[in-house]
Amino acid sequence: MPKGSLTVLGLGAMGSAIAHRLRGAGYALTVWNRTAAKAEPHTAAGAQAAPTVAAAAAAGDVVFVVLLDHATVREHLEPVAAELKGKVVVNLTTTTPNQSRATAAWAAEYGIAYLDGAIMAVPDMIGTPDARLLYAGDESAYAIARPALEALGAAEFAGADPGVASLKDMALLSAMDLMLLGYVQAIAMMRTVGTTAADTAGEVEMWLAAMLPYGREIAAIVDGGTYDTGGQSVDFDRAGIASLITASREQGVSARFLEAHRVLLDELAASGHGASDWPRIIDRLTIPS
Amino acid sequence: MPKGSLTVLGLGAMGSAIAHRLRGAGYALTVWNRTAAKAEPHTAAGAQAAPTVAAAAAAGDVVFVVLLDHATVREHLEPVAAELKGKVVVNLTTTTPNQSRATAAWAAEYGIAYLDGAIMAVPDMIGTPDARLLYAGDESAYAIARPALEALGAAEFAGADPGVASLKDMALLSAMDLMLLGYVQAIAMMRTVGTTAADTAGEVEMWLAAMLPYGREIAAIVDGGTYDTGGQSVDFDRAGIASLITASREQGVSARFLEAHRVLLDELAASGHGASDWPRIIDRLTIPS
Ligand SMILES: NC(=O)c1ccc[n+]([C@@H]2O[C@H](COP(=O)([O-])OP(=O)(O)OC[C@H]3O[C@@H](n4cnc5c(N)ncnc54)[C@H](OP(=O)(O)O)[C@@H]3O)[C@@H](O)[C@H]2O)c1
Ligand SMILES: NC(=O)c1ccc[n+]([C@@H]2O[C@H](COP(=O)([O-])OP(=O)(O)OC[C@H]3O[C@@H](n4cnc5c(N)ncnc54)[C@H](OP(=O)(O)O)[C@@H]3O)[C@@H](O)[C@H]2O)c1
Repeated sequence: MPKGSLTVLGLGAMGSAIAHRLRGAGYALTVWNRTAAKAEPHTAAGAQAAPTVAAAAAAGDVVFVVLLDHATVREHLEPVAAELKGKVVVNLTTTTPNQSRATAAWAAEYGIAYLDGAIMAVPDMIGTPDARLLYAGDESAYAIARPALEALGAAEFAGADPGVASLKDMALLSAMDLMLLGYVQAIAMMRTVGTTAADTAGEVEMWLAAMLPYGREIAAIVDGGTYDTGGQSVDFDRAGIASLITASREQGVSARFLEAHRVLLDELAASGHGASDWPRIIDRLTIPS
Repeated sequence: MPKGSLTVLGLGAMGSAIAHRLRGAGYALTVWNRTAAKAEPHTAAGAQAAPTVAAAAAAGDVVFVVLLDHATVREHLEPVAAELKGKVVVNLTTTTPNQSRATAAWAAEYGIAYLDGAIMAVPDMIGTPDARLLYAGDESAYAIARPALEALGAAEFAGADPGVASLKDMALLSAMDLMLLGYVQAIAMMRTVGTTAADTAGEVEMWLAAMLPYGREIAAIVDGGTYDTGGQSVDFDRAGIASLITASREQGVSARFLEAHRVLLDELAASGHGASDWPRIIDRLTIPS
């Protein structure tokens, strides 16, 4: 059975890696990029370069979009809705959950099957099992595109809500960001006594690796929802965080990353929850609507 | 050769675990606790209960202090400086670096050899290799006390600055705290689409385990000090963090933990460092004195 025809819109670092991989996997491929010269290595590898987005959109059964951002995506897709009708669009551009949902609603209006993807990988990883790509939206579109998606890396359908792939990506990136700030904070504190960043990072890495499973305890407490397991309390944690903040400041290092934690704990204590399990702070992250 | 005599002041959860372990390791042991009843299991195991801090301090060659906090330590040690003269005091009470330094200065004044310890363990771990205890201050005191210290867990001399054991402890705890906030943030975001905390924590744990080594790259950049490796820049990171904050808020979840990061990146960009490697934010953690 011959493989279908695919289109890739956008040949930046990520779009190029994706186009190379899809062509390498044996698909008939049409590419388009604003700066046309970037198509050359792809045509050399047997892809067709389309002169316009409309021509590119008309060529493939599945159209991958790997542009800069949401605005760029909408600007280029809206004029070619007619060409996309009945096809599968896989938008791999990074967008927020609501942007994904808005593009899905637009696609539905024009009879376009829409999949919203989130790439948890850098371009070099595309095509290896280390690349993880999340997809959300139209599950039958996922079924159609799946062989091609699996050529890009480990593929996972995250749900029918078209925002959920993006959300999950951003939730994981948020956790990573805070972990990296933890490295920065520890390095900043220890370099005041002459410890190299490399030495501190080595210690932090071992310590965090040992502490990673503690996330499961937090999760069990949050899922339980009663915050009365008798583990570390808000008040206990307040004292601990206060010491960390003081220690940092004594060394002339700002503790601003830790301050937000202290503020939430103080709010909880002030509202009578000092004896609750500390993960109750999650309730204070919910923005009153 | 008979083992020396030791004293433990404070028989709370941690002091008790330490006293049990030292007695179990064959030391002649004298204990004191404000609430005298807590000494009973220890006398049953062959320890002596001293009626006063002074008597307890006079009994041991090495005096372990495991009290609530710095104030409690000073309140109980100052009146018995004469009894402690010429002995080794190992203060395992959690204190800030400057509190450790202050007690070391006091001890020096009274001819007491002072070691400041930080316990990276819970009481159940005491006596196992999983318990890590950091010590700082008088290195000859460390040499004297070392066999007893090694009975408590993995012992490490962190330096002659008596604040450095506490500082290292607090730096590692700060990193852990931020990592745990990462779990909380991700769980909060994902539960808005019905994902259990347990599922999110499982994903976060795998993801963070894979991302842990990134700390070494941050360290290399900080130790390098030029912030021009051409890796992720301040401006790139600003865009990324802005997306995370937007995604979180779109789901009705506060992104306050991430805000501090954004503020620092914005400050860096405003001062002309938008193209620098993002770990340059560490310089902005230094409090102008
Ligand atoms: N690189 C990664 O590690 C990575 C990882 C995960 C997700 N992503 C996401 O993948 C998407 C693409 O990233 P990338 O790394 O490939 O970025 P990039 O190398 O900067 O490429 C950007 C692409 O968008 C195009 N573009 C920008 N502005 C445009 C406009 N106004 N009109 C038409 N085309 C425009 C560029 O065309 P020109 O060639 O004409 O400039 C290029 O094809 C982004 O959403 C990014 O967040 C990237
Ligand atoms: N538990 C841990 O996991 C852990 C881990 C690392 C470090 N630490 C540190 O170890 C130290 C002791 O912790 P812990 O867990 O044993 O605490 P704890 O169970 O609350 O015991 C506190 C101890 O301090 C005594 N104390 C409190 N206030 C006092 C006062 N005004 N005068 C005299 N004695 C007083 C208590 O005596 P009474 O029995 O008379 O109340 C008890 O011996 C703390 O600095 C803690 O941060 C503990």
